[in-house]
Amino acid sequence: MVKPKKSGKRELILAEAAKLFKDRGYSGTSMRDLAGQVGMEAASMYNHIKSKDELLDTICFRISDTYISQLAEIEATPSGYADKLRALVRLHIRLMVEDGAAVSVANHDWKYLPEPRLGEFKQARKAYERGFAALIEAGIAAGELRPVNVSVALFTMLSAVRWVELWYRPGRGISAEELESNIITVLLGGLEQPMPQP
Amino acid sequence: MVKPKKSGKRELILAEAAKLFKDRGYSGTSMRDLAGQVGMEAASMYNHIKSKDELLDTICFRISDTYISQLAEIEATPSGYADKLRALVRLHIRLMVEDGAAVSVANHDWKYLPEPRLGEFKQARKAYERGFAALIEAGIAAGELRPVNVSVALFTMLSAVRWVELWYRPGRGISAEELESNIITVLLGGLEQPMPQP
Repeated sequence: MVKPKKSGKRELILAEAAKLFKDRGYSGTSMRDLAGQVGMEAASMYNHIKSKDELLDTICFRISDTYISQLAEIEATPSGYADKLRALVRLHIRLMVEDGAAVSVANHDWKYLPEPRLGEFKQARKAYERGFAALIEAGIAAGELRPVNVSVALFTMLSAVRWVELWYRPGRGISAEELESNIITVLLGGLEQPMPQP
Repeated sequence: MVKPKKSGKRELILAEAAKLFKDRGYSGTSMRDLAGQVGMEAASMYNHIKSKDELLDTICFRISDTYISQLAEIEATPSGYADKLRALVRLHIRLMVEDGAAVSVANHDWKYLPEPRLGEFKQARKAYERGFAALIEAGIAAGELRPVNVSVALFTMLSAVRWVELWYRPGRGISAEELESNIITVLLGGLEQPMPQP
């Protein structure tokens, strides 16, 4: 059993590690930097975590596990395919808004994971993309989505939300909800106003 | 007057420089690497170009000049706003397909430009974004586009096409035209099939 206090320290270390990895890169961050940021001696930090590798591993796999488990939940809902895609786009934006540093590390620093975890991370990402693509494909087959190339639609959607990671912070004059609903409007509804029916 | 032969060599050096900067990064590329790639002695390469800085400058500003001049052309057409945005999205995709290495350098390595060119490049990019945003804003005001937050629509569109740079190559089983029309369908028309009118 992990004692709550120990887990609290561990979470603090993980949160500060994600911020440092995001700002300075994984290789540009030393455990000494991290200890300074957390306000602990490096030696006592090792009571809570094993290594810099372990921090990266935990940050990256928490994000990929979140994507995978949320995808499974969304797949299991009785909603239509357009609604399932809305939920997925909302998930991406919400994770970036709420846990931006960790998402950034999982997007950029995953390549520093040592094997076999590197391979496992890539497989998890592929599995997620395949699941996302399968929803698009099924939605097209059901006539709910426009008949576009599935890979193009998938990567356009995944890419379309990436700027949020770089841009969003409180004080941008837009709430997370407005951000989500606007991006979803563009991607699912299209920016063009539909022509009024005669 | 530049002799045609000299200009041909210069273009070859620029094209190979863009590929190397893209693959190894600007700082990871030496003039010796470049000379080897072009098949010239480093000393004779300097008959055609001044420095590594000059290569980066030419590559970055050619791309930003293309965006700015195409935006001006598109602004001047009598098309509606949705069509103007389609033309802009098509321009981004076409540049990535036709001149992917140079676009990649202008997207990633511009930060190595020395001042005052760095500041000028940032200003050119801002001016382009402002012009793109003004079209979205005018399109919303005219009732042609849905009433979304202009910055969100702008960055969603600019970000949505960025994956093409990493993904597209001949042999992907999709033509440049199909790629363009599919992305334009998602961004302007929306992935969701409109409901049939009763």
